[in-house]
Amino acid sequence: MPPAADIIAIAADHAGFALKEVLKEDLLAAGHQVMDLGTADGTTSVDYPDFGAALARAIAGGQATRGVVVCGTGIGISIAANREPKVRCALCHDVTTAKLAREHNDANVIAFGARVIGAEVARDALRSFLTTAFAGGRHAGRVGKLTPSETKPNLKAIA
Amino acid sequence: MPPAADIIAIAADHAGFALKEVLKEDLLAAGHQVMDLGTADGTTSVDYPDFGAALARAIAGGQATRGVVVCGTGIGISIAANREPKVRCALCHDVTTAKLAREHNDANVIAFGARVIGAEVARDALRSFLTTAFAGGRHAGRVGKLTPSETKPNLKAIA
Repeated sequence: MPPAADIIAIAADHAGFALKEVLKEDLLAAGHQVMDLGTADGTTSVDYPDFGAALARAIAGGQATRGVVVCGTGIGISIAANREPKVRCALCHDVTTAKLAREHNDANVIAFGARVIGAEVARDALRSFLTTAFAGGRHAGRVGKLTPSETKPNLKAIA
Repeated sequence: MPPAADIIAIAADHAGFALKEVLKEDLLAAGHQVMDLGTADGTTSVDYPDFGAALARAIAGGQATRGVVVCGTGIGISIAANREPKVRCALCHDVTTAKLAREHNDANVIAFGARVIGAEVARDALRSFLTTAFAGGRHAGRVGKLTPSETKPNLKAIA
């Protein structure tokens, strides 16, 4: 059972809706708290940047700690999410990239392309993303350059 | 022969260096003008965010019109590039995603993961990226939401 504070936000456009539902079921079955930011069906055409931005705001605002985004290729919604400096959204195609996104990039959001990846591959990749720790070490400085505000020293605490 | 103003910037970290060299050769052989932003070898460890940011600045500043970035998975350097709102960097794994990144997202930068994609696949994907047109239509509004400044109407011109 994950800690109560670990809320996983999930968002998709119409092309990603069906895969979002599959992944959401897995998250709930594993005992995670899920914040579903839509979209609500797979037939009404919506704009992926709106859903990527909504998820990014949830991460930046602290309402969610991790996230999952899905669109047709995963490209558009991951670009939208990565406009927010506190988001490190990794577009993944398999277990290997999901694992490396955690180990090397400390990714806090994973993106999938529902039209280019099979649901079973995405399910395994999400499991890998959720269970792999950041490797730290030489990777920490690089991650700090992606999300500078998180790595600024707290001068008050030091003084 | 592409127009003289169409300069393609290319950047990679040490993990992406060898693939960058292969793709750069292809670009030059096809008659493109290439702006190589480094890194200069595959053995000296460097930080992928520095190279993603350098390429993003070249796009945002108008020194280059399109770009190619490479790191180990393509994840870190594409996150770095996408921090710049004028960049739409698509992490691609094959010809299909490269084509869709152009048709649907009007991507101006393509990212590859040198440790997760074969060089021949990357070469074909880059060719697809360079030769596929943006589909416009319903996609234009979404792309505008990714890069708002580009889609603001020029009120002076309208008035």
